[in-house]
Amino acid sequence: MSTTSKDSGHGLQLGFVGLGRMGLNMVHRMQDAGVQCVAFDTKAEAREAVAKVGAEAADSLEAMVGKLSSPRAVWLMLPTAVVDTVLDTLVPLLEAGDMVIDGGNSHYVEDLRRAKRLGEKNIHYVDVGVSGGVWGRERGYCQMIGGPETAYKHLQPAFAALAPGVDTAPRSPGRMGKPGPAEQGYLYCGPNGAGHFVKMVHNGIEYGLMAAYAEGLNILHHANVGREKQEVDAETSPLEHPDRYQYDLPLHDVVEVWRRGSVIGSWLLDLTAIEMNKDPTLKHYAGRVSDSGEGRWTALAAIEEGVPAPVLTAALFGRFASRGNDMFADQVMSAMRHAFGGHDEKAAKGS
Amino acid sequence: MSTTSKDSGHGLQLGFVGLGRMGLNMVHRMQDAGVQCVAFDTKAEAREAVAKVGAEAADSLEAMVGKLSSPRAVWLMLPTAVVDTVLDTLVPLLEAGDMVIDGGNSHYVEDLRRAKRLGEKNIHYVDVGVSGGVWGRERGYCQMIGGPETAYKHLQPAFAALAPGVDTAPRSPGRMGKPGPAEQGYLYCGPNGAGHFVKMVHNGIEYGLMAAYAEGLNILHHANVGREKQEVDAETSPLEHPDRYQYDLPLHDVVEVWRRGSVIGSWLLDLTAIEMNKDPTLKHYAGRVSDSGEGRWTALAAIEEGVPAPVLTAALFGRFASRGNDMFADQVMSAMRHAFGGHDEKAAKGS
Amino acid sequence: MSTTSKDSGHGLQLGFVGLGRMGLNMVHRMQDAGVQCVAFDTKAEAREAVAKVGAEAADSLEAMVGKLSSPRAVWLMLPTAVVDTVLDTLVPLLEAGDMVIDGGNSHYVEDLRRAKRLGEKNIHYVDVGVSGGVWGRERGYCQMIGGPETAYKHLQPAFAALAPGVDTAPRSPGRMGKPGPAEQGYLYCGPNGAGHFVKMVHNGIEYGLMAAYAEGLNILHHANVGREKQEVDAETSPLEHPDRYQYDLPLHDVVEVWRRGSVIGSWLLDLTAIEMNKDPTLKHYAGRVSDSGEGRWTALAAIEEGVPAPVLTAALFGRFASRGNDMFADQVMSAMRHAFGGHDEKAAKGS
Amino acid sequence: MSTTSKDSGHGLQLGFVGLGRMGLNMVHRMQDAGVQCVAFDTKAEAREAVAKVGAEAADSLEAMVGKLSSPRAVWLMLPTAVVDTVLDTLVPLLEAGDMVIDGGNSHYVEDLRRAKRLGEKNIHYVDVGVSGGVWGRERGYCQMIGGPETAYKHLQPAFAALAPGVDTAPRSPGRMGKPGPAEQGYLYCGPNGAGHFVKMVHNGIEYGLMAAYAEGLNILHHANVGREKQEVDAETSPLEHPDRYQYDLPLHDVVEVWRRGSVIGSWLLDLTAIEMNKDPTLKHYAGRVSDSGEGRWTALAAIEEGVPAPVLTAALFGRFASRGNDMFADQVMSAMRHAFGGHDEKAAKGS
Repeated sequence: MSTTSKDSGHGLQLGFVGLGRMGLNMVHRMQDAGVQCVAFDTKAEAREAVAKVGAEAADSLEAMVGKLSSPRAVWLMLPTAVVDTVLDTLVPLLEAGDMVIDGGNSHYVEDLRRAKRLGEKNIHYVDVGVSGGVWGRERGYCQMIGGPETAYKHLQPAFAALAPGVDTAPRSPGRMGKPGPAEQGYLYCGPNGAGHFVKMVHNGIEYGLMAAYAEGLNILHHANVGREKQEVDAETSPLEHPDRYQYDLPLHDVVEVWRRGSVIGSWLLDLTAIEMNKDPTLKHYAGRVSDSGEGRWTALAAIEEGVPAPVLTAALFGRFASRGNDMFADQVMSAMRHAFGGHDEKAAKGS
Repeated sequence: MSTTSKDSGHGLQLGFVGLGRMGLNMVHRMQDAGVQCVAFDTKAEAREAVAKVGAEAADSLEAMVGKLSSPRAVWLMLPTAVVDTVLDTLVPLLEAGDMVIDGGNSHYVEDLRRAKRLGEKNIHYVDVGVSGGVWGRERGYCQMIGGPETAYKHLQPAFAALAPGVDTAPRSPGRMGKPGPAEQGYLYCGPNGAGHFVKMVHNGIEYGLMAAYAEGLNILHHANVGREKQEVDAETSPLEHPDRYQYDLPLHDVVEVWRRGSVIGSWLLDLTAIEMNKDPTLKHYAGRVSDSGEGRWTALAAIEEGVPAPVLTAALFGRFASRGNDMFADQVMSAMRHAFGGHDEKAAKGS
Repeated sequence: MSTTSKDSGHGLQLGFVGLGRMGLNMVHRMQDAGVQCVAFDTKAEAREAVAKVGAEAADSLEAMVGKLSSPRAVWLMLPTAVVDTVLDTLVPLLEAGDMVIDGGNSHYVEDLRRAKRLGEKNIHYVDVGVSGGVWGRERGYCQMIGGPETAYKHLQPAFAALAPGVDTAPRSPGRMGKPGPAEQGYLYCGPNGAGHFVKMVHNGIEYGLMAAYAEGLNILHHANVGREKQEVDAETSPLEHPDRYQYDLPLHDVVEVWRRGSVIGSWLLDLTAIEMNKDPTLKHYAGRVSDSGEGRWTALAAIEEGVPAPVLTAALFGRFASRGNDMFADQVMSAMRHAFGGHDEKAAKGS
Repeated sequence: MSTTSKDSGHGLQLGFVGLGRMGLNMVHRMQDAGVQCVAFDTKAEAREAVAKVGAEAADSLEAMVGKLSSPRAVWLMLPTAVVDTVLDTLVPLLEAGDMVIDGGNSHYVEDLRRAKRLGEKNIHYVDVGVSGGVWGRERGYCQMIGGPETAYKHLQPAFAALAPGVDTAPRSPGRMGKPGPAEQGYLYCGPNGAGHFVKMVHNGIEYGLMAAYAEGLNILHHANVGREKQEVDAETSPLEHPDRYQYDLPLHDVVEVWRRGSVIGSWLLDLTAIEMNKDPTLKHYAGRVSDSGEGRWTALAAIEEGVPAPVLTAALFGRFASRGNDMFADQVMSAMRHAFGGHDEKAAKGS
């Protein structure tokens, strides 16, 4: 674990709402760095857990706000679909000069709307895209920040506490002198929405990276297709060179070997190696891949900007198809093939 | 049905091997136009059927060749995987100056090899890509031809007999005078392989066209997604505007209305309208879409040429995925998501 | 040209705004069918032209509305970006029970908003997607209609007048009895937005179809790549089989031959044949392909619905790239290649 | 730099042909680890350079082979296009039991052919995919190996010398005990071709990863598109929400911040950060992205296997398009648009 000195919190106090998969770990990391958190969650066990890591637990939003001194700063770490509901209760409890930070995966378009709404009461809205997953407690959190610059500066001790710190990666050649925030792992990106915009694209890239590895491994997985009995009929594309597809490749070792010295080393590859080491067949996964919004929003932004994003969008569509949403299109094509060529569908293997 | 006058056959005689889905209809059409066919198929009922349409049936390749006068011309209409086997028997029965026509869906690379092999015996090899499906008897067959020009000229009455004829479509503005072969529906494309190369790309385009309609209809099919209950969890991308997706569209009428006056009218659309008129749900199709080679070869050619073909290739990959070949890739992505975010897969709907 | 009898207009009177590329032809066609149009355009020459085809020209929106009897119906045929401005002037001139038809290429989301706005005054809003391009005067217009069903029924004579009519295509087998509207070439698709939604997807499909032909023709265009001198360096992917790419294909004849008897025959192919017959090299086109909205909106809808649309989206992205919007991405990749492998970019051919 | 102890070479002696961008560094690394190299290159300065790092330089293939003791092992590090030519000279100099290693970027299909050819003389052929680029001297080389297992074992000291070593990355949780070769950075993948097959897919993945970052950065680069003056005509897709695209993002800091704590950290990202730190505009790159074979071969393999690879293929096609190979397709689409809608192309910006 990277170390952040106890006093880097500079006495900053923070309200914190949402102690789920990421929130509890974030509070833990901030407490360790001297940022004092007053935390609320609707679940009692989450409140108990947060107390154990040194934060103060509050039973309600009202109680939490009551424990904060001015200017108050409240960090939300919530599913995007409930943010507005919580704001409905929270905002009337706040006053001019207070700050609300949305650290969840909100669409940046929502930030623009919310910042305007809170701005009418002179409450500062800060959007922070946070990456790190379940590993962030240990590795630190990469943060992309948008909003008023004064609020950013006030909150900087919290960002620094959550960030991994410069020592967690070698400095880029050419980066010299005192490391700035970007090298610590947090970045002020611009006015409201900029943080979630950058985080959105970050996740869009993530979809593309994941699909690139997945497709490559799938090609390796089928490298023995030449051993299968080839069918001879007009419905089957013949494999012209079965002798070229006779490999049974040790996939779990392949992903391991790529971790050292290769051009495609990455943290996602490290994780893949862990998973494949447990079970190279991955048979416990059904292959239904969810998407939680950012990949879609990235594609929408690309299209609105008029910028081509074939790779990121192909990755997104692969997830849609993994959940069966390509079915009707496939039925249309089968119907067409039947109509012009009298082609009947072939039965699924094993059926 | 388009008419071709009885005497356009000019006394051409043709051996014909393979009386399957397309072959029998092709013989029928040629007989009607005065091209005399001597036909062979391994199946007795196919031989009986061909006799009924006026052709001479032969019991064996030997018998068939024996009935042909020099220079002999033998048209093969066979699954690509058995062409070489038939050639092994056929070629020794032929002599210099004879012609072999491959009208099936062979890869043009095979043409290059076979033309060389037959050329060593001075037998002319002609490759013909034939489009028309089960409708060709009535509509005529579009033919793309490669090989020695002298052989092409000798066989021209057969091509003309099979072709739809100029009257089956309005002449292109700018095309004047006596209609040439291209306007009749057959084209000499160049040396060996050129016919199947053009046919290959033709089918590659077909994959793209089919997928374009299929995707569009799928988008229309899901235009009521805003009515579904929206789940609120971190695994589900929220639908931001359910009110925009409230349409139950009459798809069978949509494809019908597009047939008249619209930019996207086509024969494939005509066929789709027929199928959807029978059953707008297409529920009898499982959506497993075969590919019979040409789409793959088109993609391979594009890649070797260094030419981008994202649409044609996406269409091809959609077919692969429709048969489940994306499964392992999807499992890899689920495993990654589990590893970095603790995400569990969501159950399939209805399971 | 398809015929529509003079009396099919049933005495319907229509205000018509926007006499551009499509509008004038539409008025012409409706006048011929007995729909009486009172037409307005800001350009005097457009007003003169419309008078010549028998319509009544009006000098202003006010004048136009003044000439209409109740319930008034005003058809807008305007660039999507000016519709709201025109509505600002028009709507105060109308009263409850009147109808406004938007026949341009508006986003269906705008329809939802406008229908609500007009509904507050009990004015009926009808959205009509119109396909037909510059050929519609002759071929008729395919129309996809959304809005209140009573307004649709009132306007049906206009839709019928614009539609191509059943005789312009063979009836689909299975369609029997008196042909309904879908077979005439117009369709009531559902409540507001449904018309433009279906038209939007129609155009999305059009993008896919166009790209499928374009990619295929590009592959044929490069079929002689084996004749080029092959470079031998680490920056160039070697062509492994130059002998397989030696074809100079007669593309203008290829597109012509596909028009008869082939599976890929279509109106878009007919148009391509006309263009390539003029100049097979297409050298007067720079290859900068515009997109006018619907392709983007189709992709956005697919993504919001969670439906894969790889083909339609690839077609859209190809247009973006044709205008240079992929440049920065390509620079990033060149920079990466330089960084890991010391690869320098190769100069462009001819530079 | 990772350390490999001097005596790990175990007295292995190696002929080495090809001292280009990678070869010289590889010899250097092996010499440091105690593998004794006798090296040949056609360029005198390369031979001098190799002598300086402790290897023995040879003036010719004959001289090199003459200095090797049996069984001889010769490692080729050559452009794929010249391997066969070198083998023509080299193989007659070798005898049964000798080994040839191809460490370049050969297509694995060539390996199958060459292994058969050399096998006829009982010479063992070993194919090694080597990743590491210009950084390998320092970081070590990731190696994927195919061929006869006995030859692999004989050569293992060389592989170990080139490999990065286990310490260059944290061990995967679950990997315990003495680290095997995969954890050192080299892997025996199977019989001939397996090494280059895995390396081929490795590079295919690399194309996908690079494109994912590049597309994402391009979307960020255009995040200020709402500031541009919007054109209002039928050829331009209107930007519906200019207010959402007002960001000037500090891209060089964005790539830097992603290096710590984020899900998308990788070595490729590290390199991108270095490049963008030098010049965030990347204006010295023209964006013509070469492809050196493996990306194409990966796509070909996917297609032959019937496995969807939309992301990897989209990345490949993006490179083709960056070099202008999409031009004719774009011209076809412009011609179609002109034909059906009278659309003229818009001029390029600035022209």
